[in-house]
Amino acid sequence: MRYELYYWPSIPGRGEFVRLALEDAGADYVDVARERGKDAGVPALIALMEAKSARPPYAPPILKAGKLVLAQTANILLYLGGRLGLAPANEAGRLWANQLQLTFADFVDEAHDTHHPIASALYYEDQREEAKRRSALFLKNRVPKFLGYFERALSDGGGPYLAGRRATYPDLSLFHVVAGLNYAFPNALAREMKKHPKVAALGQRVAERPRLKSYLASPRRLPFNEQGVFRHYPELDAPR
Amino acid sequence: MRYELYYWPSIPGRGEFVRLALEDAGADYVDVARERGKDAGVPALIALMEAKSARPPYAPPILKAGKLVLAQTANILLYLGGRLGLAPANEAGRLWANQLQLTFADFVDEAHDTHHPIASALYYEDQREEAKRRSALFLKNRVPKFLGYFERALSDGGGPYLAGRRATYPDLSLFHVVAGLNYAFPNALAREMKKHPKVAALGQRVAERPRLKSYLASPRRLPFNEQGVFRHYPELDAPR
Repeated sequence: MRYELYYWPSIPGRGEFVRLALEDAGADYVDVARERGKDAGVPALIALMEAKSARPPYAPPILKAGKLVLAQTANILLYLGGRLGLAPANEAGRLWANQLQLTFADFVDEAHDTHHPIASALYYEDQREEAKRRSALFLKNRVPKFLGYFERALSDGGGPYLAGRRATYPDLSLFHVVAGLNYAFPNALAREMKKHPKVAALGQRVAERPRLKSYLASPRRLPFNEQGVFRHYPELDAPR
Repeated sequence: MRYELYYWPSIPGRGEFVRLALEDAGADYVDVARERGKDAGVPALIALMEAKSARPPYAPPILKAGKLVLAQTANILLYLGGRLGLAPANEAGRLWANQLQLTFADFVDEAHDTHHPIASALYYEDQREEAKRRSALFLKNRVPKFLGYFERALSDGGGPYLAGRRATYPDLSLFHVVAGLNYAFPNALAREMKKHPKVAALGQRVAERPRLKSYLASPRRLPFNEQGVFRHYPELDAPR
Protein backbone atom coordinates (compact mmCIF):
# COMPACT_ATOMS: atom_id res chain seq x y z
CA MET A 1 0.00 0.00 0.00
CA ARG A 2 1.38 3.39 -1.02
CA TYR A 3 -0.08 6.01 1.31
CA GLU A 4 -0.70 9.57 0.15
CA LEU A 5 -0.36 12.34 2.72
CA TYR A 6 -1.91 15.72 1.89
CA TYR A 7 -0.76 18.64 4.02
CA TRP A 8 0.44 22.22 3.67
CA PRO A 9 3.94 21.98 2.19
CA SER A 10 5.65 24.79 4.11
CA ILE A 11 5.07 23.87 7.76
CA PRO A 12 5.51 20.80 9.97
CA GLY A 13 2.12 21.55 11.56
CA ARG A 14 -0.28 18.77 12.44
CA GLY A 15 0.83 16.80 9.39
CA GLU A 16 4.12 16.12 11.13
CA PHE A 17 2.46 13.69 13.54
CA VAL A 18 1.48 11.56 10.56
CA ARG A 19 4.85 11.97 8.85
CA LEU A 20 6.69 10.77 11.96
CA ALA A 21 4.68 7.56 12.06
CA LEU A 22 5.13 6.90 8.34
CA GLU A 23 8.85 7.64 8.51
CA ASP A 24 9.47 5.61 11.64
CA ALA A 25 7.78 2.61 10.06
CA GLY A 26 9.63 3.03 6.78
CA ALA A 27 6.25 3.13 5.05
CA ASP A 28 5.82 3.73 1.34
CA TYR A 29 4.23 7.19 1.12
CA VAL A 30 4.07 10.34 -0.96
CA ASP A 31 3.87 13.79 0.61
CA VAL A 32 1.65 14.94 -2.24
CA ALA A 33 1.53 18.68 -1.74
CA ARG A 34 5.34 18.80 -1.62
CA GLU A 35 5.72 17.03 -4.96
CA ARG A 36 5.75 18.85 -8.29
CA GLY A 37 3.93 18.10 -11.48
CA LYS A 38 0.49 16.91 -12.39
CA ASP A 39 -1.82 15.86 -9.54
CA ALA A 40 0.64 17.22 -7.00
CA GLY A 41 1.40 20.39 -5.08
CA VAL A 42 -1.14 22.52 -3.22
CA PRO A 43 -3.63 22.33 -6.12
CA ALA A 44 -3.93 18.58 -5.49
CA LEU A 45 -4.61 19.26 -1.80
CA ILE A 46 -7.27 21.85 -2.64
CA ALA A 47 -8.83 19.52 -5.22
CA LEU A 48 -9.06 16.72 -2.66
CA MET A 49 -10.67 19.04 -0.10
CA GLU A 50 -13.22 20.28 -2.62
CA ALA A 51 -14.01 16.95 -4.23
CA LYS A 52 -17.59 15.83 -3.83
CA SER A 53 -17.62 13.03 -1.27
CA ALA A 54 -20.00 11.41 1.19
CA ARG A 55 -17.15 11.67 3.72
CA PRO A 56 -15.43 14.98 3.02
CA PRO A 57 -12.40 16.15 5.04
CA TYR A 58 -12.81 19.36 7.03
CA ALA A 59 -9.12 20.28 6.98
CA PRO A 60 -5.64 18.80 6.39
CA PRO A 61 -3.86 16.59 7.25
CA ILE A 62 -5.62 14.11 4.97
CA LEU A 63 -4.49 10.56 4.27
CA LYS A 64 -5.45 8.61 1.18
CA ALA A 65 -5.10 4.86 1.60
CA GLY A 66 -6.52 3.21 -1.48
CA LYS A 67 -10.13 4.36 -1.67
CA LEU A 68 -10.17 5.58 1.91
CA VAL A 69 -9.83 9.33 2.51
CA LEU A 70 -9.26 10.15 6.18
CA ALA A 71 -8.93 13.44 8.01
CA GLN A 72 -8.22 14.49 11.60
CA THR A 73 -4.72 13.69 12.83
CA ALA A 74 -5.75 11.36 15.65
CA ASN A 75 -8.13 9.51 13.34
CA ILE A 76 -5.40 9.00 10.74
CA LEU A 77 -3.07 7.66 13.42
CA LEU A 78 -5.80 5.41 14.79
CA TYR A 79 -6.01 3.88 11.31
CA LEU A 80 -2.27 3.75 10.65
CA GLY A 81 -1.07 2.74 14.11
CA GLY A 82 -1.75 -0.97 13.88
CA ARG A 83 -0.88 -1.19 10.19
CA LEU A 84 2.53 0.40 10.79
CA GLY A 85 3.30 -1.70 13.86
CA LEU A 86 3.10 1.39 16.05
CA ALA A 87 -0.01 0.64 18.14
CA PRO A 88 -0.52 -1.49 21.23
CA ALA A 89 -1.71 -5.01 20.51
CA ASN A 90 -5.12 -5.11 22.20
CA GLU A 91 -8.21 -2.89 22.23
CA ALA A 92 -7.58 -1.40 25.68
CA GLY A 93 -4.06 -0.44 24.60
CA ARG A 94 -5.30 1.09 21.37
CA LEU A 95 -7.89 3.16 23.19
CA TRP A 96 -5.12 4.38 25.51
CA ALA A 97 -2.96 5.37 22.53
CA ASN A 98 -5.92 7.22 21.01
CA GLN A 99 -6.67 8.91 24.34
CA LEU A 100 -3.09 10.16 24.55
CA GLN A 101 -3.17 11.41 20.96
CA LEU A 102 -6.35 13.37 21.71
CA THR A 103 -4.69 14.91 24.73
CA PHE A 104 -1.77 15.98 22.53
CA ALA A 105 -4.33 17.52 20.17
CA ASP A 106 -5.76 19.59 23.02
CA PHE A 107 -2.28 20.67 24.10
CA VAL A 108 -1.33 21.61 20.53
CA ASP A 109 -4.54 23.63 20.07
CA GLU A 110 -3.68 25.59 23.18
CA ALA A 111 -0.11 26.10 21.98
CA HIS A 112 -1.47 27.43 18.68
CA ASP A 113 -3.78 29.84 20.42
CA THR A 114 -0.90 31.43 22.35
CA HIS A 115 -0.07 33.37 19.18
CA HIS A 116 -3.65 33.50 17.87
CA PRO A 117 -5.89 33.97 20.92
CA ILE A 118 -8.49 36.05 19.09
CA ALA A 119 -8.74 34.47 15.63
CA SER A 120 -6.72 32.47 13.13
CA ALA A 121 -8.06 34.84 10.48
CA LEU A 122 -6.16 37.81 11.98
CA TYR A 123 -2.43 38.44 11.79
CA TYR A 124 -0.34 37.83 14.87
CA GLU A 125 0.47 41.53 14.90
CA ASP A 126 -3.24 42.29 15.33
CA GLN A 127 -3.47 40.24 18.54
CA ARG A 128 0.00 40.62 20.00
CA GLU A 129 -1.08 42.05 23.35
CA GLU A 130 -3.66 39.30 23.84
CA ALA A 131 -1.03 36.76 22.78
CA LYS A 132 1.32 37.98 25.49
CA ARG A 133 -1.36 37.58 28.11
CA ARG A 134 -2.39 34.14 26.90
CA SER A 135 1.20 32.88 26.54
CA ALA A 136 2.17 33.89 30.07
CA LEU A 137 -0.74 31.89 31.49
CA PHE A 138 -0.12 28.98 29.13
CA LEU A 139 3.48 28.74 30.33
CA LYS A 140 2.52 29.21 33.97
CA ASN A 141 -0.44 26.85 34.20
CA ARG A 142 -0.98 24.70 31.15
CA VAL A 143 2.51 23.52 30.16
CA PRO A 144 3.27 22.23 33.69
CA LYS A 145 -0.14 20.55 33.87
CA PHE A 146 0.14 18.76 30.53
CA LEU A 147 3.82 17.80 30.90
CA GLY A 148 3.17 16.73 34.48
CA TYR A 149 0.41 14.46 33.25
CA PHE A 150 2.65 12.77 30.66
CA GLU A 151 5.41 12.43 33.26
CA ARG A 152 2.93 10.75 35.58
CA ALA A 153 1.77 8.38 32.84
CA LEU A 154 5.38 7.40 32.12
CA SER A 155 6.10 6.98 35.79
CA ASP A 156 2.99 5.06 36.88
CA GLY A 157 2.93 3.03 33.67
CA GLY A 158 6.44 1.77 34.29
CA GLY A 159 7.71 3.13 30.95
CA PRO A 160 9.98 3.69 29.28
CA TYR A 161 7.28 4.32 26.65
CA LEU A 162 3.79 5.69 27.14
CA ALA A 163 2.20 2.32 26.50
CA GLY A 164 4.89 0.29 28.22
CA ARG A 165 7.97 -1.45 26.91
CA ARG A 166 7.46 -0.85 23.23
CA ALA A 167 7.28 2.45 21.34
CA THR A 168 3.90 3.34 19.83
CA TYR A 169 2.74 6.35 17.86
CA PRO A 170 1.94 8.51 20.92
CA ASP A 171 5.64 8.39 21.81
CA LEU A 172 6.53 9.89 18.44
CA SER A 173 3.82 12.50 18.96
CA LEU A 174 5.07 13.48 22.40
CA PHE A 175 8.55 13.90 20.94
CA HIS A 176 7.09 16.32 18.37
CA VAL A 177 5.07 18.30 20.91
CA VAL A 178 8.16 18.81 23.06
CA ALA A 179 10.26 19.73 20.00
CA GLY A 180 7.63 22.29 18.99
CA LEU A 181 7.38 23.80 22.45
CA ASN A 182 11.16 23.95 22.65
CA TYR A 183 11.22 25.89 19.40
CA ALA A 184 8.45 28.26 20.47
CA PHE A 185 9.41 28.82 24.11
CA PRO A 186 13.08 27.84 24.58
CA ASN A 187 13.56 29.70 27.86
CA ALA A 188 10.44 28.37 29.51
CA LEU A 189 11.02 24.84 28.25
CA ALA A 190 14.62 24.67 29.42
CA ARG A 191 13.35 25.12 32.96
CA GLU A 192 10.25 23.01 32.52
CA MET A 193 11.97 19.93 31.10
CA LYS A 194 14.20 19.63 34.15
CA LYS A 195 11.05 18.91 36.12
CA HIS A 196 9.93 16.21 33.68
CA PRO A 197 12.94 13.94 33.19
CA LYS A 198 10.97 10.96 31.87
CA VAL A 199 9.34 13.06 29.17
CA ALA A 200 12.76 14.46 28.26
CA ALA A 201 14.33 10.98 28.15
CA LEU A 202 11.49 9.68 26.00
CA GLY A 203 12.04 12.48 23.50
CA GLN A 204 15.74 11.63 23.23
CA ARG A 205 15.00 7.95 22.82
CA VAL A 206 12.55 8.68 20.01
CA ALA A 207 14.99 11.00 18.23
CA GLU A 208 17.58 8.21 18.21
CA ARG A 209 15.41 5.62 16.51
CA PRO A 210 17.38 4.79 13.37
CA ARG A 211 14.78 5.66 10.74
CA LEU A 212 13.70 8.79 12.58
CA LYS A 213 17.28 9.90 13.13
CA SER A 214 17.84 9.69 9.41
CA TYR A 215 14.54 11.45 8.68
CA LEU A 216 15.24 14.27 11.14
CA ALA A 217 18.57 14.95 9.41
CA SER A 218 17.00 14.90 5.94
CA PRO A 219 15.35 17.68 3.91
CA ARG A 220 12.06 15.83 4.29
CA ARG A 221 11.91 17.18 7.85
CA LEU A 222 10.53 20.72 7.54
CA PRO A 223 11.93 23.28 9.96
CA PHE A 224 9.61 25.00 12.43
CA ASN A 225 8.74 28.52 11.32
CA GLU A 226 6.37 31.39 12.00
CA GLN A 227 3.60 30.07 9.74
CA GLY A 228 2.91 26.92 11.71
CA VAL A 229 1.41 25.76 14.96
CA PHE A 230 4.58 26.29 17.01
CA ARG A 231 6.00 29.77 16.44
CA HIS A 232 8.91 31.49 18.07
CA TYR A 233 8.08 35.05 19.06
CA PRO A 234 10.68 35.98 21.71
CA GLU A 235 8.26 38.36 23.41
CA LEU A 236 5.93 35.44 24.22
CA ASP A 237 8.59 33.29 25.87
CA ALA A 238 9.62 33.50 29.53
CA PRO A 239 12.67 35.68 30.31
CA ARG A 240 16.00 33.88 29.98
CA MET B 1 -22.48 -4.17 31.55
CA ARG B 2 -23.28 -1.23 33.84
CA TYR B 3 -21.30 1.77 32.63
CA GLU B 4 -20.12 4.46 35.02
CA LEU B 5 -19.86 8.01 33.72
CA TYR B 6 -17.77 10.49 35.70
CA TYR B 7 -18.31 14.14 34.89
CA TRP B 8 -18.87 17.48 36.60
CA PRO B 9 -22.40 17.33 38.00
CA SER B 10 -23.52 20.91 37.35
CA ILE B 11 -22.98 21.36 33.61
CA PRO B 12 -23.89 19.48 30.42
CA GLY B 13 -20.36 20.17 29.11
CA ARG B 14 -18.47 17.55 27.16
CA GLY B 15 -20.00 14.80 29.28
CA GLU B 16 -23.29 15.43 27.52
CA PHE B 17 -22.01 13.84 24.30
CA VAL B 18 -21.53 10.60 26.24
CA ARG B 19 -24.85 10.92 28.07
CA LEU B 20 -26.74 11.33 24.82
CA ALA B 21 -25.33 8.10 23.44
CA LEU B 22 -26.02 6.18 26.65
CA GLU B 23 -29.55 7.57 26.90
CA ASP B 24 -30.41 7.02 23.26
CA ALA B 25 -29.33 3.40 23.52
CA GLY B 26 -31.18 2.87 26.79
CA ALA B 27 -27.91 1.70 28.30
CA ASP B 28 -27.50 0.77 31.94
CA TYR B 29 -25.35 3.54 33.40
CA VAL B 30 -24.70 5.58 36.51
CA ASP B 31 -23.84 9.28 36.36
CA VAL B 32 -21.56 8.83 39.36
CA ALA B 33 -20.76 12.42 40.31
CA ARG B 34 -24.48 13.24 40.37
CA GLU B 35 -25.28 10.44 42.81
CA ARG B 36 -25.10 10.82 46.57
CA GLY B 37 -23.55 8.63 49.17
CA LYS B 38 -20.39 6.60 49.45
CA ASP B 39 -18.22 6.29 46.33
CA ALA B 40 -20.31 8.93 44.59
CA GLY B 41 -20.42 12.68 44.03
CA VAL B 42 -17.51 14.87 43.03
CA PRO B 43 -15.19 13.15 45.56
CA ALA B 44 -15.54 9.93 43.55
CA LEU B 45 -14.62 11.82 40.37
CA ILE B 46 -11.57 13.37 42.02
CA ALA B 47 -10.54 10.02 43.48
CA LEU B 48 -10.73 8.40 40.04
CA MET B 49 -8.64 11.18 38.51
CA GLU B 50 -6.00 10.91 41.19
CA ALA B 51 -5.86 7.13 41.40
CA LYS B 52 -2.52 5.62 40.50
CA SER B 53 -2.90 4.06 37.07
CA ALA B 54 -0.78 3.09 34.08
CA ARG B 55 -3.44 4.80 31.94
CA PRO B 56 -4.56 7.85 33.90
CA PRO B 57 -7.27 10.21 32.59
CA TYR B 58 -6.22 13.80 31.96
CA ALA B 59 -9.70 15.27 32.48
CA PRO B 60 -13.40 14.33 32.57
CA PRO B 61 -15.51 12.94 31.02
CA ILE B 62 -14.30 9.53 32.11
CA LEU B 63 -16.06 6.25 31.48
CA LYS B 64 -15.58 3.12 33.55
CA ALA B 65 -16.55 -0.05 31.75
CA GLY B 66 -15.56 -2.97 33.92
CA LYS B 67 -11.81 -2.62 34.40
CA LEU B 68 -11.44 -0.18 31.54
CA VAL B 69 -11.08 3.51 32.44
CA LEU B 70 -11.38 5.75 29.37
CA ALA B 71 -11.07 9.49 28.94
CA GLN B 72 -11.45 11.93 26.04
CA THR B 73 -14.99 12.29 24.72
CA ALA B 74 -14.28 11.06 21.20
CA ASN B 75 -12.35 8.08 22.56
CA ILE B 76 -15.22 7.11 24.86
CA LEU B 77 -17.65 7.32 21.95
CA LEU B 78 -15.31 5.31 19.73
CA TYR B 79 -15.51 2.58 22.36
CA LEU B 80 -19.23 2.87 23.06
CA GLY B 81 -20.47 3.48 19.51
CA GLY B 82 -20.45 -0.10 18.30
CA ARG B 83 -21.48 -1.54 21.65
CA LEU B 84 -24.53 0.74 21.83
CA GLY B 85 -25.55 0.12 18.23
CA LEU B 86 -24.73 3.73 17.36
CA ALA B 87 -21.75 3.28 15.04
CA PRO B 88 -21.51 2.42 11.36
CA ALA B 89 -20.97 -1.25 10.65
CA ASN B 90 -17.59 -1.31 8.91
CA GLU B 91 -14.17 0.18 9.62
CA ALA B 92 -14.40 2.94 7.02
CA GLY B 93 -17.72 4.03 8.50
CA ARG B 94 -16.36 3.98 12.03
CA LEU B 95 -13.38 6.09 11.04
CA TRP B 96 -15.81 8.57 9.45
CA ALA B 97 -17.85 8.72 12.66
CA ASN B 98 -14.68 9.30 14.66
CA GLN B 99 -13.51 11.95 12.19
CA LEU B 100 -16.81 13.81 12.61
CA GLN B 101 -16.63 13.58 16.39
CA LEU B 102 -13.12 15.07 16.34
CA THR B 103 -14.39 17.92 14.18
CA PHE B 104 -17.14 18.58 16.74
CA ALA B 105 -14.44 18.61 19.40
CA ASP B 106 -12.55 21.33 17.50
CA PHE B 107 -15.74 23.33 17.04
CA VAL B 108 -16.64 23.01 20.72
CA ASP B 109 -13.15 24.09 21.80
CA GLU B 110 -13.54 27.20 19.69
CA ALA B 111 -17.00 27.84 21.13
CA HIS B 112 -15.55 27.56 24.63
CA ASP B 113 -12.78 30.00 23.85
CA THR B 114 -15.26 32.69 22.77
CA HIS B 115 -15.83 33.38 26.46
CA HIS B 116 -12.34 32.38 27.61
CA PRO B 117 -9.94 33.56 24.89
CA ILE B 118 -7.08 34.29 27.28
CA ALA B 119 -7.24 31.51 29.87
CA SER B 120 -9.67 29.11 31.50
CA ALA B 121 -8.03 30.02 34.79
CA LEU B 122 -9.31 33.62 34.60
CA TYR B 123 -12.89 34.76 35.15
CA TYR B 124 -14.93 35.76 32.13
CA GLU B 125 -15.08 39.28 33.54
CA ASP B 126 -11.29 39.47 33.31
CA GLN B 127 -11.31 38.79 29.56
CA ARG B 128 -14.60 40.31 28.46
CA GLU B 129 -13.16 42.68 25.86
CA GLU B 130 -11.09 39.90 24.28
CA ALA B 131 -14.16 37.67 24.40
CA LYS B 132 -16.18 40.22 22.42
CA ARG B 133 -13.51 40.37 19.76
CA ARG B 134 -13.16 36.61 19.54
CA SER B 135 -16.91 35.97 19.52
CA ALA B 136 -17.57 38.39 16.67
CA LEU B 137 -15.02 36.59 14.50
CA PHE B 138 -16.23 33.16 15.61
CA LEU B 139 -19.77 34.03 14.52
CA LYS B 140 -18.62 35.67 11.30
CA ASN B 141 -16.10 33.09 10.10
CA ARG B 142 -16.07 29.89 12.08
CA VAL B 143 -19.74 29.07 12.67
CA PRO B 144 -20.59 29.37 8.95
CA LYS B 145 -17.53 27.31 8.03
CA PHE B 146 -18.24 24.46 10.45
CA LEU B 147 -22.01 24.38 9.87
CA GLY B 148 -21.44 24.64 6.13
CA TYR B 149 -19.17 21.63 6.32
CA PHE B 150 -21.76 19.51 8.14
CA GLU B 151 -24.45 20.68 5.71
CA ARG B 152 -22.22 19.60 2.85
CA ALA B 153 -21.60 16.19 4.43
CA LEU B 154 -25.35 15.67 4.86
CA SER B 155 -26.00 16.81 1.34
CA ASP B 156 -23.25 14.92 -0.51
CA GLY B 157 -23.65 11.85 1.69
CA GLY B 158 -27.32 11.57 0.77
CA GLY B 159 -28.44 11.76 4.40
CA PRO B 160 -30.64 12.03 6.23
CA TYR B 161 -27.98 11.15 8.81
CA LEU B 162 -24.27 11.95 8.75
CA ALA B 163 -23.32 8.36 8.03
CA GLY B 164 -26.26 7.65 5.75
CA ARG B 165 -29.64 6.11 6.42
CA ARG B 166 -29.17 5.17 10.02
CA ALA B 167 -28.49 7.43 13.01
CA THR B 168 -25.05 7.06 14.62
CA TYR B 169 -23.44 8.86 17.55
CA PRO B 170 -22.17 11.83 15.52
CA ASP B 171 -25.80 12.72 14.78
CA LEU B 172 -26.53 12.97 18.50
CA SER B 173 -23.38 15.05 18.91
CA LEU B 174 -24.32 17.46 16.13
CA PHE B 175 -27.71 17.91 17.77
CA HIS B 176 -25.94 18.87 21.01
CA VAL B 177 -23.51 21.26 19.33
CA VAL B 178 -26.40 23.09 17.65
CA ALA B 179 -28.38 23.15 20.91
CA GLY B 180 -25.39 24.62 22.72
CA LEU B 181 -24.74 27.27 20.08
CA ASN B 182 -28.45 28.14 20.10
CA TYR B 183 -28.26 28.69 23.82
CA ALA B 184 -25.09 30.76 23.64
CA PHE B 185 -25.80 32.82 20.52
CA PRO B 186 -29.56 32.75 19.86
CA ASN B 187 -29.60 35.76 17.53
CA ALA B 188 -26.71 34.63 15.39
CA LEU B 189 -27.94 31.04 15.24
CA ALA B 190 -31.49 31.97 14.22
CA ARG B 191 -30.02 33.50 11.07
CA GLU B 192 -27.36 30.85 10.56
CA MET B 193 -29.64 27.84 10.78
CA LYS B 194 -31.79 29.11 7.91
CA LYS B 195 -28.73 28.64 5.70
CA HIS B 196 -28.21 25.07 6.91
CA PRO B 197 -31.59 23.35 6.61
CA LYS B 198 -30.22 19.80 6.63
CA VAL B 199 -28.34 20.40 9.87
CA ALA B 200 -31.50 21.93 11.36
CA ALA B 201 -33.65 19.01 10.20
CA LEU B 202 -31.18 16.50 11.59
CA GLY B 203 -31.31 18.21 14.98
CA GLN B 204 -35.11 17.99 15.04
CA ARG B 205 -35.04 14.35 14.00
CA VAL B 206 -32.60 13.51 16.80
CA ALA B 207 -34.66 15.37 19.40
CA GLU B 208 -37.68 13.30 18.46
CA ARG B 209 -36.07 9.92 18.96
CA PRO B 210 -38.26 8.31 21.63
CA ARG B 211 -35.63 7.64 24.29
CA LEU B 212 -33.96 11.00 23.73
CA LYS B 213 -37.27 12.86 23.77
CA SER B 214 -37.99 11.36 27.15
CA TYR B 215 -34.45 12.09 28.38
CA LEU B 216 -34.57 15.70 27.20
CA ALA B 217 -37.77 16.26 29.17
CA SER B 218 -36.36 14.63 32.31
CA PRO B 219 -34.32 16.10 35.18
CA ARG B 220 -31.40 13.97 34.02
CA ARG B 221 -30.89 16.52 31.22
CA LEU B 222 -28.93 19.37 32.81
CA PRO B 223 -29.75 22.86 31.58
CA PHE B 224 -27.08 24.95 29.89
CA ASN B 225 -25.63 27.58 32.21
CA GLU B 226 -22.77 30.02 32.59
CA GLN B 227 -20.36 27.47 34.08
CA GLY B 228 -20.17 25.23 31.05
CA VAL B 229 -18.79 25.14 27.54
CA PHE B 230 -21.75 26.96 25.96
CA ARG B 231 -22.55 30.17 27.86
CA HIS B 232 -25.05 32.87 27.09
CA TYR B 233 -23.58 36.32 27.51
CA PRO B 234 -25.86 38.63 25.50
CA GLU B 235 -23.01 41.01 24.74
CA LEU B 236 -21.21 38.24 22.81
CA ASP B 237 -24.15 37.39 20.56
CA ALA B 238 -24.99 39.14 17.28
CA PRO B 239 -27.57 41.95 17.49
CA ARG B 240 -31.17 40.81 17.23
